[in-house]
Amino acid sequence: MLITDKKNKNNMDKYVLGIDFGTLSGRSLLIRVENGIEVATSVFDYPHAVMDDLLPDGTKLGVDWALQHPDDYLEVLRQTIPAVLSEASVEPEQVIGLGIDFTACTVLPVKADGTPLCLIPEFSSEPNAWIKLWKHHAAQGEANKLNEIAEERGESFLSRYGGKISSEWLIPKIWQTFNEAPEIYNAADRFIEAADWVIWQLTGNEKRNTCTAGYKAIWHKSEGYPTDEFFSALDPGLKNLVKDKLSADLYPVGSKAGELTDKAAELTGLLAGTAVAVANVDAHVSVPAVGITEAGKMLMIMGTSTCHMVLGEEEKEVPGMCGVVEDGIIEGYYGYEAGQSCVGDHFQWFVENCTPDEYMKEAKEKGVDIHELLTVKAAELKPGESGLLALDWWNGNRSVLVDVDLMGMMLGMSLATKAEEIYRALVEATAYGTRMIIDTFHKNGVPVNELYAAGGIAEKNAFIMQIYADVCKREIRISGSPQAPALGSGMFGAVAAGKERGGYDNIVDAARVMGKLKDIVYRPIEENVKVYDKLFAEYETLHDYFGRGDNDVMKRLKEIKLKSR
Amino acid sequence: MLITDKKNKNNMDKYVLGIDFGTLSGRSLLIRVENGIEVATSVFDYPHAVMDDLLPDGTKLGVDWALQHPDDYLEVLRQTIPAVLSEASVEPEQVIGLGIDFTACTVLPVKADGTPLCLIPEFSSEPNAWIKLWKHHAAQGEANKLNEIAEERGESFLSRYGGKISSEWLIPKIWQTFNEAPEIYNAADRFIEAADWVIWQLTGNEKRNTCTAGYKAIWHKSEGYPTDEFFSALDPGLKNLVKDKLSADLYPVGSKAGELTDKAAELTGLLAGTAVAVANVDAHVSVPAVGITEAGKMLMIMGTSTCHMVLGEEEKEVPGMCGVVEDGIIEGYYGYEAGQSCVGDHFQWFVENCTPDEYMKEAKEKGVDIHELLTVKAAELKPGESGLLALDWWNGNRSVLVDVDLMGMMLGMSLATKAEEIYRALVEATAYGTRMIIDTFHKNGVPVNELYAAGGIAEKNAFIMQIYADVCKREIRISGSPQAPALGSGMFGAVAAGKERGGYDNIVDAARVMGKLKDIVYRPIEENVKVYDKLFAEYETLHDYFGRGDNDVMKRLKEIKLKSR
Repeated sequence: MLITDKKNKNNMDKYVLGIDFGTLSGRSLLIRVENGIEVATSVFDYPHAVMDDLLPDGTKLGVDWALQHPDDYLEVLRQTIPAVLSEASVEPEQVIGLGIDFTACTVLPVKADGTPLCLIPEFSSEPNAWIKLWKHHAAQGEANKLNEIAEERGESFLSRYGGKISSEWLIPKIWQTFNEAPEIYNAADRFIEAADWVIWQLTGNEKRNTCTAGYKAIWHKSEGYPTDEFFSALDPGLKNLVKDKLSADLYPVGSKAGELTDKAAELTGLLAGTAVAVANVDAHVSVPAVGITEAGKMLMIMGTSTCHMVLGEEEKEVPGMCGVVEDGIIEGYYGYEAGQSCVGDHFQWFVENCTPDEYMKEAKEKGVDIHELLTVKAAELKPGESGLLALDWWNGNRSVLVDVDLMGMMLGMSLATKAEEIYRALVEATAYGTRMIIDTFHKNGVPVNELYAAGGIAEKNAFIMQIYADVCKREIRISGSPQAPALGSGMFGAVAAGKERGGYDNIVDAARVMGKLKDIVYRPIEENVKVYDKLFAEYETLHDYFGRGDNDVMKRLKEIKLKSR
Repeated sequence: MLITDKKNKNNMDKYVLGIDFGTLSGRSLLIRVENGIEVATSVFDYPHAVMDDLLPDGTKLGVDWALQHPDDYLEVLRQTIPAVLSEASVEPEQVIGLGIDFTACTVLPVKADGTPLCLIPEFSSEPNAWIKLWKHHAAQGEANKLNEIAEERGESFLSRYGGKISSEWLIPKIWQTFNEAPEIYNAADRFIEAADWVIWQLTGNEKRNTCTAGYKAIWHKSEGYPTDEFFSALDPGLKNLVKDKLSADLYPVGSKAGELTDKAAELTGLLAGTAVAVANVDAHVSVPAVGITEAGKMLMIMGTSTCHMVLGEEEKEVPGMCGVVEDGIIEGYYGYEAGQSCVGDHFQWFVENCTPDEYMKEAKEKGVDIHELLTVKAAELKPGESGLLALDWWNGNRSVLVDVDLMGMMLGMSLATKAEEIYRALVEATAYGTRMIIDTFHKNGVPVNELYAAGGIAEKNAFIMQIYADVCKREIRISGSPQAPALGSGMFGAVAAGKERGGYDNIVDAARVMGKLKDIVYRPIEENVKVYDKLFAEYETLHDYFGRGDNDVMKRLKEIKLKSR
């Protein structure tokens, strides 16, 4: 919700821009620095969207590819920044800084001057020359080999990533290029996160951020990247990958990357010299947007899947987390990340595949969305009343067990079981999954005392949030902004500008003023907590039985399934 | 399908009548003795159906009651017998015998002359005076106590019934009357199966059958009923129950009960003196109807639930079967019964509660039943292709585990799982349940070499039957008659008449001529068997894990569920 705030506006007010580059579109958000009020927003859909079938010239892509076009990102800047300035009648000179956040790992090969290889005619028909989007999964083979070799060599970095490097991350994606298109690998002077490449285009400086490096490129503040020996073990040809293709010149989030160049000023309609923060990642940048700048508070970004972010004061090995990076979220803290690969997706699956005819009719008659109808019915049930219990693994398990081969499970069905009971059981299962993650952090020295939530589910669904509070036995506060990532980016823009130019000296100060929560707090209801404690104990037993090797039936079924096809 | 067979008919042909008393209606089937051809059938719906709410005089019934009216059974005889004679132009003198089968245990209190207590005005407002139908479940309290006491006393009869006497059976139902309506208990000269009562009305003889006595009244050919000490232990007032209220004068199935009285001749339009067989039970009487008269062949009667009947040459203790009775199905053999409490009910539940809108629309557009649509889609899948596995316990487990508190389970779901995959997994789960029963018989000395199937599913669903053949690794033959119980009853009528009157000397001879199979045989497909062997091994592990005490999560969930209500 935008508050135009016209009454109090004057030409002396300072603004920042937060720009959030998503999977299908980019969004600019214009924010007043002194109070965090969001005065205008503008979204631009990427003309090339996600290329998962063909390149622009018609070259066919393989299975599991997902590419993007660099021009689309620049077009977001060209379109949305003038749009918000104009909508809010804010002058360029009132904008003191900007920050951006991005999907990650979203990576491209470039020449030394920043030119993307995909824009050079001789390379433009080679898929590996293009930007590999975070959800490009065609490097799974490389990821598997990498994990095998790392484990054999006893590489210590594995423990920082829950024991596994994802095929979505930087090194497997580069290795795929090396294997499939050596000419691209050789021609590339750099492989760079799209986030850092956009900053480069804005400032003229290749100033890479520690957040993507830490979470996606196996970089560690004191240990750096993996060793040349490790890369040699992958392939002798990769030995000098770090030296030749990456950059060890990294800047913590909250740093200033530089100022807008004349060229970038022309592109955006802003003034040359406007401060620009180093790039960030969408989930991570949301943490200060809800006001979190200290340890013990976990932010859950809840949508089709959920990201869990929490700050810690020490580096701990938490089994099955996605990653821990010093200064990765807020400078001075260890930023921990975990995730559930399937949250809203469960409910959507159920609606699309298992919701009976008569419920669809009832929703239509009442003029409500089917999720809303199921929610109303499910909300009438008491905890435990359905007798159902599920494991939330319809899309594998990302954190704690880190196992994509795990599958969904539900038990307790009788001939009287109704659709809303199954729907509620799926909601509860995702809450148990979150509690599993919280308990794992907590037991391994990373306290989680309070919960914060952002994203579509947190925004809209009180029924789900109350179940999460009851299951996780913690109060939950909700992001005050529906576009937390863009707000967080804007806050880092204000830090890049600094206090002298009307911004803030650090993200803690910025968060205190610009970070936002709704008034509502979901508090655990004691009566429900008692029942959910019992149900969670059952969940935990089944989680371990099916997930920790007692009965690997899910994996064997998957093998049989793959063979049968 | 009735074949009128007019061309070959003449007035010398002999016929028998098989009368099948079901839950909501009774059916007469007129059959030619020399070839088993079914020439006419007639169904009459009971005017009082199942009384589960009110008595005829408006007296309110409690929860779980299910009563019937004795007049309804006589009305079946009055209506349907003349109807089939007339339809087939068969003269009464051509009908040499009749047999009946019934639901069981369906029991009523009567005076010494056979008058039902419920028809005596002073008792007609007392629910316990009426006929308790097989599915009357209001004696669960008595059944629980009976099982507790029997176990404490180490009563050997328990092992013949899988360790548990059902609340649906005779003794709990009588005990309930004793507890709630002692005046009825005292006024009753007899408690008698409705099946035997109808025979009494037809022949004037109280000639009870060994089938219901053995399967439902804890009677054993050499041990008789439980001892007076046992009944004393239940309640001192029940000490003489056997002597005072039952009859130890029992006749094996295949015996002649007597001949039609003048009164019964008037009721039915048949001739007085027509031979009448002792009564039988619907499932059991179907065994010879498919031609089974020897050990090693199991008949599955497949509908909403499934009954499994197999003959054995010795009395064995098979864990978790429903019962074993000497001469209980075919004289000279031990008749074994097992069951699955939920088969077609699973598929119906899924269709009513989980079938998506678009499938319903597609079925409508194609003008097919939704089960048919799901079947067509599910049939396109290969074994193991869905990755799904379920436990068929949506209504508990009747055989092997004998545990009503077990619940359904399914695992292997992903975001790509489709409705037809779930539907197929439910079909497969019921097939695994059947194989579990077969394996349990087989391992405990009761061989099962071939399968036979009757009932709605066997009749109509080639997809399901092929899966059963593949999972159970045995050929399956299908009943040639869609009304196997009535056909079987008619065959016993022909045996009651005997060879001299144009019938048969024994059921083996009758079955050889009158027993019927379809031409189709479902044979295991080797490729499928290989996959299903693997899947069944997984089913077995989960069956034991959830069903034999390793993880009693289902029971704990049920407790929580009951408490929450």
